[in-house]
Amino acid sequence: MPCRRLNNLVADAISMPILKNPADLPARRGTIYPTPLDEGFNGRIKRAMTGALGLTQFGVNLTTLEPGAKSSLRHWHAHEDECIYVLSGVLTLVQEDGEHVLTAGMAAGFPAGDANAHHLINRSADPATYLEIGTRSETESATYADVDLRAEKQGGVYRFFHKDGTPYA
Amino acid sequence: MPCRRLNNLVADAISMPILKNPADLPARRGTIYPTPLDEGFNGRIKRAMTGALGLTQFGVNLTTLEPGAKSSLRHWHAHEDECIYVLSGVLTLVQEDGEHVLTAGMAAGFPAGDANAHHLINRSADPATYLEIGTRSETESATYADVDLRAEKQGGVYRFFHKDGTPYA
Repeated sequence: MPCRRLNNLVADAISMPILKNPADLPARRGTIYPTPLDEGFNGRIKRAMTGALGLTQFGVNLTTLEPGAKSSLRHWHAHEDECIYVLSGVLTLVQEDGEHVLTAGMAAGFPAGDANAHHLINRSADPATYLEIGTRSETESATYADVDLRAEKQGGVYRFFHKDGTPYA
Repeated sequence: MPCRRLNNLVADAISMPILKNPADLPARRGTIYPTPLDEGFNGRIKRAMTGALGLTQFGVNLTTLEPGAKSSLRHWHAHEDECIYVLSGVLTLVQEDGEHVLTAGMAAGFPAGDANAHHLINRSADPATYLEIGTRSETESATYADVDLRAEKQGGVYRFFHKDGTPYA
C-alpha cells in the first residue's frame, strides 16, 4: 500500500485520542520469532491501538486470526499481566489445563508469573477477532512450553535464546 | 440477591482464568463519590473482570450505561493510563475538545497526565456497553473539571477533597 494512502487511512481512523475505526489501522502480519519458529503466522493480523490511543503503560491490539492461524507460540510472561476479550468468531484457547472454546463476549486472563503457557488457535472456517491487552514493562522474560525458545526483553526490545542460553542468530 | 445465588453465578461465570460470561459477574451500581456528587449514578453498572481474570496490574471493567447515565464526573488521571472500547450502543464522549459520538468498535484513550477531562454519557434510548481498562497504580491523583472535587489515592484507596484541600466528610 502506498505510504500516502496508508497515512490517510490512519488519519481517518484517529482523531486523538479517539479511534473511530481501529480496523483501518495498519495491519501487521507475521511475528518477530526467529526462523524457523516464525513459520505459520501469516494468518495473524495485529492492529496496534496503543500508540493511536496515546497509551504507554499497557498495550492494546485488535488482533484477527484467520482460519488455521495462532496467536503465538504457547508461552507465559514473568512480569506482564495479559488478557484477551473475544469480539467475534470462535477461538480455541490452549493452556496447561487443556483446551477451551471461546466465543464473542468471553475473556481470559494470564496473570504475570503464572506458569500457564497459553495461546489461541482459530480452528474454525471464519476469521476470529479479539482485543489483547498487556502491561508494557521495560524488562520481561517469556517462557515457551513447546519449542526451544526463551525471550528476554531489555529496554523494551526482545531478544530470543535457545533454552541452553545460546542466542538465536 | 441471596449470597448463595450470587456465589453460584460467579462460579458459573468463571473457570479461572476464563470468563465465559462477564455479564453474569456481580453488578455494581452507583459510585464512591461523596454526597451529593454521587447522585445520578444509579444507571451506571460496572462488572469488575479484573479479579476474575487474575489480574492486578491493570483493571478491566465491563460497564453498561443505561439511558441518561454517565461514566463518571468529568476528570483526568495524573498517573494511570485509561482507555475504553465500545461494545454496543451509542455513547457521547465529552472531553476538552468537545463532544464525540462513539458507537460499537470505536475506542478512546486517556493517557496519564494528559489534562483532558473526560466522561461518557448515554444520551440514547437504549443501554450502551463498553470495556474500560486502566492501569492500577498505588498512588493516583484525579482532577475534576466541573465540580469542587479532587481525588487522591494512597495504597490503592481513594480519598476525596474539596479543591481547597478540605476533606469531604
